[in-house]
Amino acid sequence: MSILLRDLDSDGVLRLTLNDAAKRNALSEAMLTELGTAFDDAGRDPKVRVIILAANGPAFCAGHDLKEMTAGRTGEDRGRAYFTRILTQCSSVMQGIVNCPKPVIAEVTGIATAAGCQLVASCDLAVAADTAKFSTPGVHIGLFCSTPMVALSRNVSNKHAMEMLLTGDMTSAERAAEIGLVNRCTSPDALRDDVMAMARKIASKSSMTLATGKRAFYAQAQMPLADAYDYASRVMVDNMLARDAEEGIGAFIEKRAPEWQDA
Amino acid sequence: MSILLRDLDSDGVLRLTLNDAAKRNALSEAMLTELGTAFDDAGRDPKVRVIILAANGPAFCAGHDLKEMTAGRTGEDRGRAYFTRILTQCSSVMQGIVNCPKPVIAEVTGIATAAGCQLVASCDLAVAADTAKFSTPGVHIGLFCSTPMVALSRNVSNKHAMEMLLTGDMTSAERAAEIGLVNRCTSPDALRDDVMAMARKIASKSSMTLATGKRAFYAQAQMPLADAYDYASRVMVDNMLARDAEEGIGAFIEKRAPEWQDA
Amino acid sequence: MSILLRDLDSDGVLRLTLNDAAKRNALSEAMLTELGTAFDDAGRDPKVRVIILAANGPAFCAGHDLKEMTAGRTGEDRGRAYFTRILTQCSSVMQGIVNCPKPVIAEVTGIATAAGCQLVASCDLAVAADTAKFSTPGVHIGLFCSTPMVALSRNVSNKHAMEMLLTGDMTSAERAAEIGLVNRCTSPDALRDDVMAMARKIASKSSMTLATGKRAFYAQAQMPLADAYDYASRVMVDNMLARDAEEGIGAFIEKRAPEWQDA
Repeated sequence: MSILLRDLDSDGVLRLTLNDAAKRNALSEAMLTELGTAFDDAGRDPKVRVIILAANGPAFCAGHDLKEMTAGRTGEDRGRAYFTRILTQCSSVMQGIVNCPKPVIAEVTGIATAAGCQLVASCDLAVAADTAKFSTPGVHIGLFCSTPMVALSRNVSNKHAMEMLLTGDMTSAERAAEIGLVNRCTSPDALRDDVMAMARKIASKSSMTLATGKRAFYAQAQMPLADAYDYASRVMVDNMLARDAEEGIGAFIEKRAPEWQDA
Repeated sequence: MSILLRDLDSDGVLRLTLNDAAKRNALSEAMLTELGTAFDDAGRDPKVRVIILAANGPAFCAGHDLKEMTAGRTGEDRGRAYFTRILTQCSSVMQGIVNCPKPVIAEVTGIATAAGCQLVASCDLAVAADTAKFSTPGVHIGLFCSTPMVALSRNVSNKHAMEMLLTGDMTSAERAAEIGLVNRCTSPDALRDDVMAMARKIASKSSMTLATGKRAFYAQAQMPLADAYDYASRVMVDNMLARDAEEGIGAFIEKRAPEWQDA
Repeated sequence: MSILLRDLDSDGVLRLTLNDAAKRNALSEAMLTELGTAFDDAGRDPKVRVIILAANGPAFCAGHDLKEMTAGRTGEDRGRAYFTRILTQCSSVMQGIVNCPKPVIAEVTGIATAAGCQLVASCDLAVAADTAKFSTPGVHIGLFCSTPMVALSRNVSNKHAMEMLLTGDMTSAERAAEIGLVNRCTSPDALRDDVMAMARKIASKSSMTLATGKRAFYAQAQMPLADAYDYASRVMVDNMLARDAEEGIGAFIEKRAPEWQDA
């Protein structure tokens, strides 16, 4: 059985399931490689319209595999080259989610800690079971969650991020929803259907439009206001001239359902 | 009857009212021209101390006029020059609100969608009737709300913005208050008085001070911390040396009401 | 009696107490000098692991000393050089908190206004008595809170910051917690114990790890995403190779308590 399951339905919803429950779905080298490839593939596959990132087992994802990391402390450099490689790989996977042209929704069933919390923060959307918990517990082991905080601090305000990072305490799903780490939480029983409904709704939109918008969202967020408007205006003009906008606006005016080019 | 009403009271509160209810106060070329001129004029008029942006009719503002936009799809360039012009004009109006030296409060009575939601996000403050609703529904018609998201993403956190942008779903006024898109919501009956009380309070301050502070707010927000402090310290020294600060501090120490230069 | 009390306990918790109740703990030149020196000293003192910033008297801190400021309006330059010096000093103290390698927690007992509100916003964490209040009331006296807004706007969203800045209104502790200005509020009776528990928890971590993480947090927050990941990955590799991470990870795997180098 693969450690990352891929299941694409007829609506274009790709369900990626972390499937290494025995290791609490740790981001081992093997898991990172699977995830990186899966998001790359999904980004290029026209049949994939939206991606759900889910997990089997009680933990959503427990972050890096500390035993594997510790085993890398060898050689003259005491593991420096190895750690650099694995953290670069991990950061590349996280940015691969942000840069993936398809919207990504985290379906958080259980604890999401360290790089597992980063994984949730890196997704475009996240819905959590109200039994899920979140933490960046690196301070407990002398290793500050410095790469997780890149994603965390781009989702929640400074004091909320600092409380998680400096104390290492668990944050409840309800609190995670309050501070903006997840969009909302729901009962464990309703979670899968809730996420699926959200995914299907997004999958019914034009993939070209979603890809255009997602790319522009993260790009403009890093620009000063005037530059952001110049850029977003150019994006929107190109979008207006694309076939799906012409069809979508026409359908709206004619009060009929649009037919997307890639549907 | 003009599509944008201007009503200036003796307290210096300028009420701009979108007055094209039949078109759901759409941001047609004519409306954008009216708005741009009104904010320019108000910025220069010493009698205007604070601006309320309100609307007549059940909708606050439904965004661009899609029929007008569609009619622009002509010529060899299929409308590229036209779309560029109207989006540039729209972005200029939105930035005109941010750059206007007078504080601007949105009084949101009904739905505010697409560029109408952007209008609310672009104001310094916003109060909504609890029956108001907000959305960036461009995905429904194949045209991602890329320029609205510039303003939206500068008000709410990433996952909240992405949920609105990717699903196109309506956000209730209560939820808009929770995520920071508006300052608060209130009953439709209390809305106008509530906004007016806020406007009068701000209108009682020194216009020079408000202009100084508003400009500095948006300028420093885009700077690294050390640069922001250097800049804000220079702003505050100049403010200290201005007549209204000398008067205001003197009045405070002497426990009397200040008399502003421009009152 | 000093206007700033320093009390270091055996757990490494340094309690700095603003002790000028008669002046509502105003940030006079003398107080700013005391604070600047105290944070500098604490940053260098290996016995200090975490800092609590507390206050004696009903007010936490009322901001600048307006009488002292007014007395500076002398000479040919009407005080420009003096105002520049005191605002530069104040900004330096605020940045000294951000740049201090030890985590800083504000324990907010009463009102925190103007630069007093900035002080709270500048701390890494803040807990308030539910009777505490916050404001940036400079508009009342013609002097916009331009330097306080640098810290305020890096904690709360634009519309919330603008409401405080443009109206000068008081914000309750409960509301301050909702908008992210403080982490949470609690009863006045429980406040000290609550903050102390948080401080002790953080003090039990590796100081090297806390210093590494705090510095990286504020540095990466100002970078574009890809740069932030490159930087944070380098920080984390260095952290992995440090003695305390090796000890902490080893202790975790062996299910024993870690012994930090500097404990």
